[in-house]
Amino acid sequence: MTPTQLDLIALDADDTLWHNESIFSMTEEKFMQLLAAYHSPELIQHKLYEIELRNLHNFGYGVKGFMLSMIETAIELTDGQVSGAVIQQILDFGKAMVHAPVELLDHVAEVVPRLAASHTLMLLTKGDLFDQESKLARSGLAEYFRYVEIVSDKTTTSYRALLQRYQVDPLRFLMVGNSLRSDILPVTALGGWAVYIPYHLTWAHETVADHDPQHQHYVELEHIGLLPDLIERLGDKSA
Amino acid sequence: MTPTQLDLIALDADDTLWHNESIFSMTEEKFMQLLAAYHSPELIQHKLYEIELRNLHNFGYGVKGFMLSMIETAIELTDGQVSGAVIQQILDFGKAMVHAPVELLDHVAEVVPRLAASHTLMLLTKGDLFDQESKLARSGLAEYFRYVEIVSDKTTTSYRALLQRYQVDPLRFLMVGNSLRSDILPVTALGGWAVYIPYHLTWAHETVADHDPQHQHYVELEHIGLLPDLIERLGDKSA
Repeated sequence: MTPTQLDLIALDADDTLWHNESIFSMTEEKFMQLLAAYHSPELIQHKLYEIELRNLHNFGYGVKGFMLSMIETAIELTDGQVSGAVIQQILDFGKAMVHAPVELLDHVAEVVPRLAASHTLMLLTKGDLFDQESKLARSGLAEYFRYVEIVSDKTTTSYRALLQRYQVDPLRFLMVGNSLRSDILPVTALGGWAVYIPYHLTWAHETVADHDPQHQHYVELEHIGLLPDLIERLGDKSA
Repeated sequence: MTPTQLDLIALDADDTLWHNESIFSMTEEKFMQLLAAYHSPELIQHKLYEIELRNLHNFGYGVKGFMLSMIETAIELTDGQVSGAVIQQILDFGKAMVHAPVELLDHVAEVVPRLAASHTLMLLTKGDLFDQESKLARSGLAEYFRYVEIVSDKTTTSYRALLQRYQVDPLRFLMVGNSLRSDILPVTALGGWAVYIPYHLTWAHETVADHDPQHQHYVELEHIGLLPDLIERLGDKSA
């Protein structure tokens, strides 16, 4: 098998191609300052996370759900005394997030065009359709992805359905991402290849308790700049 | 051409398969009552629509964007005096929308399974990914759709890309929906077939000033119960 015999390489977006969790973290900081007169940063952060989880089944992932959860947290933590001006600031935080410049991670600007020259690339990301399309457009990377799939969840079932729809054999599929739970484990479970590139921040909800780093189709890289060489080596190894 | 030579029939979801605009309208009524002490219903409605349009580029379509726009409208229309309790009520309105029972339009429960028996069906809808997947799951119709595509916009460009991706000739594609702007005009522009089934309510943003009802690939039906017969006749006509 030569490297080009990988029929499809899919890349996660948030915190794989561009910074995302850091924008949420910065907004969370501002939110804690906004309510500093009422509670400690720790308590605010804890309550916000609790409400975000509680609201996942109402709002799904993304900036809009995060805004709504911040608003709900502000109401709860002030016993309804929060002012309209504070709520407006939360709305403004959210709008700033929506339009924040998309900052690519190191090496992404070189690696993605290089991979696109030899392989079919898919952007495969979880989250809010509007958020993700908007970030892709601002990233300058849209032209390198033949396919874009924005999904509500990444599970073994959803990967299987996707690969069937694109008629791609899992053995010729490689997924690259920063979430063991979403990008790696469901793919290796199908027999596909997965490259895990950790980001320095992971939202608590995306962490997994344990995993098997010895899996033969699973590789961890320090940064995405190492990906092209790995893909070449994968090709040699399975030749 | 026999009827089965339509390779793909795509159906819009909101207000084509199930009631949607009516849920927004009912929530808007409740919102107007909530602010009745401050302003007339007309002014509140007008302001909300203005803010929704202004926020489309921030939030896209869907319930979460609607909630955020209601909150922003409440702040503006009360000069920031709105109470936390009122904001919480808006959050509760939105959550009720997210979990409202999905009410199918008349004839849908019979027509969709019947069409699925003879044709490949796609659910093709604009809007928020989370909202739409959740409604499809609650509708009981998911099993009849081989494909589900939730897109941020329906334009000639996006239909062309979609048909290329599925390798479907526009001449063998039929789109069914309640929006001239999103479901009909971009499809007939590509040479595809389109069936327009008006809903009694249309969001102002979806209306179009004029269109050409004489287009040979364009048919208007009073309700979806008439669709199977039309599809048979289309087949005969183009035989």
